[in-house]
Amino acid sequence: MLDVGAAERLAHLFKALGDPTRVRLLSMIAAADTGEACICDLTAPVGLSQPTVSHHMKLLVDAGLVTREQRGKWAYYAVVPEALESLAGALAPRAVASV
Amino acid sequence: MLDVGAAERLAHLFKALGDPTRVRLLSMIAAADTGEACICDLTAPVGLSQPTVSHHMKLLVDAGLVTREQRGKWAYYAVVPEALESLAGALAPRAVASV
Repeated sequence: MLDVGAAERLAHLFKALGDPTRVRLLSMIAAADTGEACICDLTAPVGLSQPTVSHHMKLLVDAGLVTREQRGKWAYYAVVPEALESLAGALAPRAVASV
Repeated sequence: MLDVGAAERLAHLFKALGDPTRVRLLSMIAAADTGEACICDLTAPVGLSQPTVSHHMKLLVDAGLVTREQRGKWAYYAVVPEALESLAGALAPRAVASV
């Protein structure tokens, strides 16, 4: 069985994804041709204000699922492939037991 | 980008896993040699009462991550590999955009 610490780390990541807006934001960033997305391009597709989107992005950054880089006026976000892979690996039915 | 419905379905599954106890319970069930685990074997390892464990299990069942079968006095749980695979697939960095 997973030890408590490992389970808490995984649950923290899953919780960050337990919101449809954050799932959509993550999917947009992952789909970006350049590998990153500007906050300025994320607000309109989800139909939310920039402060609200920034709040969602902060939760994804704090969870370690995406990185944030400030360039001039705008923040740019990129996914952390290793974080997504560790979650995906934990969900492989045979792997769940051995993480 | 994911449409709203797909994002909501994924977020619902992730939310069900956003708790360390549920992550641990799922890992125990996935690790069971027989492919299923009796509620009677799940309570002691997580150190919680049977009603509390049953509540956590109900959330996992309602999310479609595990199945529940009552046999006599006890409930038996098994993981739904397709549900875990769909989550894992959604987390593959290149797949996130195309689910």
